Amino acid sequence: MRMVDLIEKKRDGKELTTEEINFIVEGYTNGDVPDYQMSAFNMAVFFQDMTERERADLTMAMVNSGETIDLSAIEGVKVDKHSTGGVGDTTTLVLAPLVAALDIPVAKMSGRGLGHTGGTIDKLEAVEGFHVEITKDEFIKLVNESKIAVIGQSGNLTPADKKLYALRDVTATVNSIPLIASSIMSKKIAAGADAIVLDVKTGAGAFMKTPEDAKELAHAMVSIGNNVGRKTMAVISDMSQPLGLAIGNSLEIQEAIDTLKGQGPKDLEELCFALGSQMVFLANKASSLEEAEQKLREVIANGKALEKFKLFLANQGGDASVVDHPERLPQAKFHIEVPAKQDGVVAELVADEIGTAAMLLGAGRATKESEIDLAVGLMLNKKVGDSVKAGESLVTIHSNRENVDDVMAMLYENIRIADHADAPTLVYGTVTE
Amino acid sequence: MRMVDLIEKKRDGKELTTEEINFIVEGYTNGDVPDYQMSAFNMAVFFQDMTERERADLTMAMVNSGETIDLSAIEGVKVDKHSTGGVGDTTTLVLAPLVAALDIPVAKMSGRGLGHTGGTIDKLEAVEGFHVEITKDEFIKLVNESKIAVIGQSGNLTPADKKLYALRDVTATVNSIPLIASSIMSKKIAAGADAIVLDVKTGAGAFMKTPEDAKELAHAMVSIGNNVGRKTMAVISDMSQPLGLAIGNSLEIQEAIDTLKGQGPKDLEELCFALGSQMVFLANKASSLEEAEQKLREVIANGKALEKFKLFLANQGGDASVVDHPERLPQAKFHIEVPAKQDGVVAELVADEIGTAAMLLGAGRATKESEIDLAVGLMLNKKVGDSVKAGESLVTIHSNRENVDDVMAMLYENIRIADHADAPTLVYGTVTE
Repeated sequence: MRMVDLIEKKRDGKELTTEEINFIVEGYTNGDVPDYQMSAFNMAVFFQDMTERERADLTMAMVNSGETIDLSAIEGVKVDKHSTGGVGDTTTLVLAPLVAALDIPVAKMSGRGLGHTGGTIDKLEAVEGFHVEITKDEFIKLVNESKIAVIGQSGNLTPADKKLYALRDVTATVNSIPLIASSIMSKKIAAGADAIVLDVKTGAGAFMKTPEDAKELAHAMVSIGNNVGRKTMAVISDMSQPLGLAIGNSLEIQEAIDTLKGQGPKDLEELCFALGSQMVFLANKASSLEEAEQKLREVIANGKALEKFKLFLANQGGDASVVDHPERLPQAKFHIEVPAKQDGVVAELVADEIGTAAMLLGAGRATKESEIDLAVGLMLNKKVGDSVKAGESLVTIHSNRENVDDVMAMLYENIRIADHADAPTLVYGTVTE
Repeated sequence: MRMVDLIEKKRDGKELTTEEINFIVEGYTNGDVPDYQMSAFNMAVFFQDMTERERADLTMAMVNSGETIDLSAIEGVKVDKHSTGGVGDTTTLVLAPLVAALDIPVAKMSGRGLGHTGGTIDKLEAVEGFHVEITKDEFIKLVNESKIAVIGQSGNLTPADKKLYALRDVTATVNSIPLIASSIMSKKIAAGADAIVLDVKTGAGAFMKTPEDAKELAHAMVSIGNNVGRKTMAVISDMSQPLGLAIGNSLEIQEAIDTLKGQGPKDLEELCFALGSQMVFLANKASSLEEAEQKLREVIANGKALEKFKLFLANQGGDASVVDHPERLPQAKFHIEVPAKQDGVVAELVADEIGTAAMLLGAGRATKESEIDLAVGLMLNKKVGDSVKAGESLVTIHSNRENVDDVMAMLYENIRIADHADAPTLVYGTVTE
């Protein structure tokens, strides 16, 4: 088998066999297939796409390129949730204790944030003492005992995907449905998930700019999951404006606590129920999505979800008292209001740009090496569709530096006030096949 | 400017500026643009094509990537001829003395053959003593005095094209009209041609399998030439069967001599007149193609073309007596006939496979390092459309080894005899814009 012939086959729109896809991925991982052939292949895939069978094969070839996590020692159906990334996305912090409170094992492998997108581990580290550096045995023991634990990403999962992603990034082949879908799914499968719930974001702050594109990506991933024996469902959700009100690590922990108390922002709560219902359903703890949502509402109402969050923090060395005393979370020195310059209705809050404004304060990483400031961030006082009077605060900046002119300017540029605007649709639909 | 953005621009079907194309070619030549970005770019070009302006810019960027040959010290219009490559293609050997006999300067830079395609220098070296290792000054002096000289390919012409071609070869991006056309044209322009005549082959032995594809390539090259100030014309000619009757170095020299005497195979003669007329016309030595052909026929009839060939051989150290005594050319030890197994009409002589059969005898190079045997080759006794009786010889094998079973088997496999067949069209048309 020669790589040049396989590039040509794909270039000409023909379907590759399982053996051929394995040859490509194995060869690329071990260096037999050079970058320059792989990048030509990726561009051919960009134009010619892959069949559902090819996509499933590509995914499994990437899973098999490295280690896989064996979660079989954990009882129950391990359901993982994945978001394609957004701004102020606090759903993981809410959903993990929420479904664990229904005795669904949450064995979460998580990462750090980059650019305008926050990372779950960064957020959890806003709780003093909390750490994810635990052994695999501790991790499994914690999940079996408490139904919930988070561990940092292990070294050698899906090396083919890591290498491939770095190449796609510099060769204009990131934006290809089969390549995105197989990249995401390979990581989830290698991390040991039995079932997968996907939150596919759409809008300015997301990779998929339109609901149609997001639906296509969701379908591609659900199809891969189901074809390789992992029950998979997806929600298409809005990321034209940030989710919830908080952007920043401490601020999002506090928002998660509020939501687990039943006092969170409406949009965050709604999305958590949409995603959580699918998780409960796939874990066989409810026979319909409606029944699943009912159960989730119960554990919020009776305080079990909040208790689970406390247990989770304490289990991993964190100061669980922050749940009752959020003021013990890292606090920024300055709270600076951003007043509206006119009367009207908020018509636009450009998600990715507002995320970048929070990053400028130190809430996120500009590069992999950047240090982040857990205390700082933004609290939105208005969301799209809200009325506002001139002088009223649109956003509160939580900063450790006094001069925030740069952040202020960026916010004004990305918050549009008009005569009239409706709140955007939050959930565009669910994808189950 | 970032290469990844330019790949994306081409991927999305947009037109690149002159500056952007220069950035890509300069960057690739000096190593700033790595192979893996260039191969993704090439694949994007494969799918999205290039405008005529982009093709001209790409060609000139490759010309400017290395040295160019300055032929301004040679008087007259320097017309170069290029063939896209074929089997038994003796046209250059005939055309060079033929047009030189009309006082058109032939300053030919030529190469060696690879695979089933012969190289002009290899063929000329069948004449004892002939050599192309002459200095540039000698070369120019010879052309000014005698109107004809051949020099070997110089080191650093179009390095961008050399690097790009090697990359395309292993990334399934050879077969792209803008890339093929700019590659060929850049080499001709860098070699100093004022005007260019192209012989674009079509059929089994050629790169372009159909006349339509060949016409598209011809149009692309003629358009590039005219856009960068080099008058260019093209002929589309058949390469489904070998051209002429001889395949092999000595054998083709002899065939060229026959043709210059007016006694060559009909198809070779016809193609030489088609190409030669364009050369004479572009050199401003005739006001129409018809007048040009008339002049070519005259210098064959009056012996001037043959005299020019003798002068040319002698000028570069060759034994010109072979023109009158072809038996002095290297001769193979064995002449083995390949008899027809049935009565009928020759319906197919698969050009590239028959070229490969000649290569097996030693007439061509399997790899760049192979030594070739100047004496060996094939003489076709029948061409497509010719009647044949069982037992009559189809081909005479000229070999220096006694056992030629492999060559014989390959020939039988690629010569088809049927009840009826017509001779193929030789010239499919000319392209002038």
